[in-house]
Amino acid sequence: MAQLIALFLCRCRPPDVVVFPRCVEEVSALAKVCHKHRLPIIPFGTGTGLEGGVGAMKGGVCFSLRNMEQVLDLHPEDFDVTVEPGVTRKTLNAYLRDTGLWFPIDPGADASLCGMAATSASGTNAVRYGTMRENVINLEVVLADGSVVHTAGKGRRPRKTSAGYNLTNLFVGSEGTLGIITKTTLRLYGIPEAMVSAVCSFPSVQAAVDSTVQTLQAGVPIARIEFLDDVMIDACNRFSSLSYPVTPTLFLEFHGSEQSLEEQVKTAEDITQSNGGSDFQWARDTETRNRLWKARHDAWYAALALRPGCKAYSTDVCVPLSRLPQIIVETKEDLIENRLTGPIAGHVGDGNFHCLMVVDPNDPEEMHRVHLFTERLARRALAMDGTCTGEHGVGLGKRALLCEEMGPVGIQVMQSLKDALDPNNLMNPGKILQREEP
Amino acid sequence: MAQLIALFLCRCRPPDVVVFPRCVEEVSALAKVCHKHRLPIIPFGTGTGLEGGVGAMKGGVCFSLRNMEQVLDLHPEDFDVTVEPGVTRKTLNAYLRDTGLWFPIDPGADASLCGMAATSASGTNAVRYGTMRENVINLEVVLADGSVVHTAGKGRRPRKTSAGYNLTNLFVGSEGTLGIITKTTLRLYGIPEAMVSAVCSFPSVQAAVDSTVQTLQAGVPIARIEFLDDVMIDACNRFSSLSYPVTPTLFLEFHGSEQSLEEQVKTAEDITQSNGGSDFQWARDTETRNRLWKARHDAWYAALALRPGCKAYSTDVCVPLSRLPQIIVETKEDLIENRLTGPIAGHVGDGNFHCLMVVDPNDPEEMHRVHLFTERLARRALAMDGTCTGEHGVGLGKRALLCEEMGPVGIQVMQSLKDALDPNNLMNPGKILQREEP
Repeated sequence: MAQLIALFLCRCRPPDVVVFPRCVEEVSALAKVCHKHRLPIIPFGTGTGLEGGVGAMKGGVCFSLRNMEQVLDLHPEDFDVTVEPGVTRKTLNAYLRDTGLWFPIDPGADASLCGMAATSASGTNAVRYGTMRENVINLEVVLADGSVVHTAGKGRRPRKTSAGYNLTNLFVGSEGTLGIITKTTLRLYGIPEAMVSAVCSFPSVQAAVDSTVQTLQAGVPIARIEFLDDVMIDACNRFSSLSYPVTPTLFLEFHGSEQSLEEQVKTAEDITQSNGGSDFQWARDTETRNRLWKARHDAWYAALALRPGCKAYSTDVCVPLSRLPQIIVETKEDLIENRLTGPIAGHVGDGNFHCLMVVDPNDPEEMHRVHLFTERLARRALAMDGTCTGEHGVGLGKRALLCEEMGPVGIQVMQSLKDALDPNNLMNPGKILQREEP
Repeated sequence: MAQLIALFLCRCRPPDVVVFPRCVEEVSALAKVCHKHRLPIIPFGTGTGLEGGVGAMKGGVCFSLRNMEQVLDLHPEDFDVTVEPGVTRKTLNAYLRDTGLWFPIDPGADASLCGMAATSASGTNAVRYGTMRENVINLEVVLADGSVVHTAGKGRRPRKTSAGYNLTNLFVGSEGTLGIITKTTLRLYGIPEAMVSAVCSFPSVQAAVDSTVQTLQAGVPIARIEFLDDVMIDACNRFSSLSYPVTPTLFLEFHGSEQSLEEQVKTAEDITQSNGGSDFQWARDTETRNRLWKARHDAWYAALALRPGCKAYSTDVCVPLSRLPQIIVETKEDLIENRLTGPIAGHVGDGNFHCLMVVDPNDPEEMHRVHLFTERLARRALAMDGTCTGEHGVGLGKRALLCEEMGPVGIQVMQSLKDALDPNNLMNPGKILQREEP
């Protein structure tokens, strides 16, 4: 239970100091001071991570990067842009609005883009556009000793490279444990000529997931394909004043030219209907589409509203596509058996889903049941060739599970990389890897 | 000049021993012997790399992995497969033929897939399907001490993960300097319902590249868009008995449904014509398409045939798309000024192109001119925010340029990773990083 409690408490483990640097030179100078005095450094973007990544487990200095908020070096003709750590995904997309370009990666929160790089975030568009791993071109990082590295070389932004070790993707997902990300260069995409969203209800989880797999197999370049179980859609209906049938549901979105949309939609409709899905309920105009996806992004709040006064804890796993029906069905049975509230929402095109656990933090017995449940869920994913975390990262909450997932040699390799870049364990200590934790 | 000569000679720097392990246990046992006796290890796949990656610069033991040639664990419903190091890309695609799936990454040679992972290979389809970086899900790697690591955990194959440091993409592109890849799990794709190829001639390099950029901006999901300059198309005409106009040329390929192809082609044709391109010459049936792409893949031999008795050396760089016309025009001027034969072919959708230098190895003065030319080309790419190597890797030939590209801190970070995983510098010593080289 320790780790779940740690998650709820970690916002209460404050650092000794918070600094608000305004530029990379200040970050570097401050990091040098910390290095000299052996003070832990905790990078802080928007604090919207879900695995306790910003808790100051050993005290130290929190580097809040909110004052570095410039959008730099937009190159529309090259489809790339560089941003500082205070820039969030919504801010960037607002900035880009007149260029015809956008950045599609969308975790639920309006997270900072450098934080999203640090946690290897993804979201509803990943099935089409990839995760942060595929969309970061370069990073500027302040290392534990205060030196500054550019992971692909300073100012470089080729769309591909094979120049030495892939430092960019070593720092993407390193959760602040290897350095402080002070700039990220991102790949942008043209805003599709047309977009249309649809909602489809299914008689069973299997039917919804089968439709997903068959849609991908048919080569439909679907942009979003999101699963909501009956409990989740019920919560969304209540919270966002919608009225979808309370059964397993897919929210879909298609991007392309008008003509290609027609074809994509027809193929997807044929597939969903052959699996017993309902007629599509359409969201064609921007306002209706935005309302639909806001409801999906508000799933966290919708879940919370199921039990006023409770706290939410979202856990996620990811498995090969073909294992999805089994793991979701078993997980729902587990929830019912253990009297837990845990609506399920997932990026099923990636094999990734979340249980939004709603729990009374003052009920230790329920906390214990939630803890055991999340462990069983992760182990179920591991037993199906999957991962204990598809997009939330490891943070504090999944360190023990990471050991099971990677095995001892894998953990040892990770530890040796950490030791190589941060020999004094100053960078966000105690996250991802357990060694040297009290 | 030393590095160019080294490239030509490195096939003549034989190892002391070649071993032919049949399974990972044998690779591990042999690596332990090498570790104990401090013998260098040089992993060998098909030997088709272009930057001298397999030369035994310090002697030692060559691990030829050709006897490990099983295709393992095909999961068609999950779009993934695992292969041993002896399996080449063509062998895999022949194996997959009846499944409706394929693996699209296609460097010129019929390279081994584990070797392609080791060198972060890409090819003509990368603009649509990505490079090895985006398509390797997991690797089994024997480390310098003989221990075995699975970079995403043993047997795991989720389509995405945020479980700790991204070890998979640290080993992809590490060119045998961090470990021996003994298995790779790859992402597969559905074979498109329809494919069509076309050839289009242009009045200028600028017109061809502008067409490329505009096609991408228009959101056409083009599968291949390959540039050949006048010298290259002339060489291909002669070598492959074709008769295309001898001007800057694009080879294009479109993948999708019949209906979406029509639309893609129409958009691309409108764009090329507005830039003064010729009518498309079509390759619709499989045989004609294969002939076209074989001609493109045979560019190396076509270049060689321009000067019988000479040797070829292919160098590649990659720049942001908008810089392509300038760098190609300047490079062609440089070739002419310096009386060098260097047809240009490129994956221009990625900003990546090759100069296929044809040189008389017995003419030291010409060798010197080629060497200076390749350095100027790389520095031109670096000055345009690009990389000195888009897909060939660093090997021996580009170690000095890598230092210019990354800067001292970047090189130091790479060296510290190397030292952490291979403290005795046994794994393919002298490649990528220069330290400790004689």
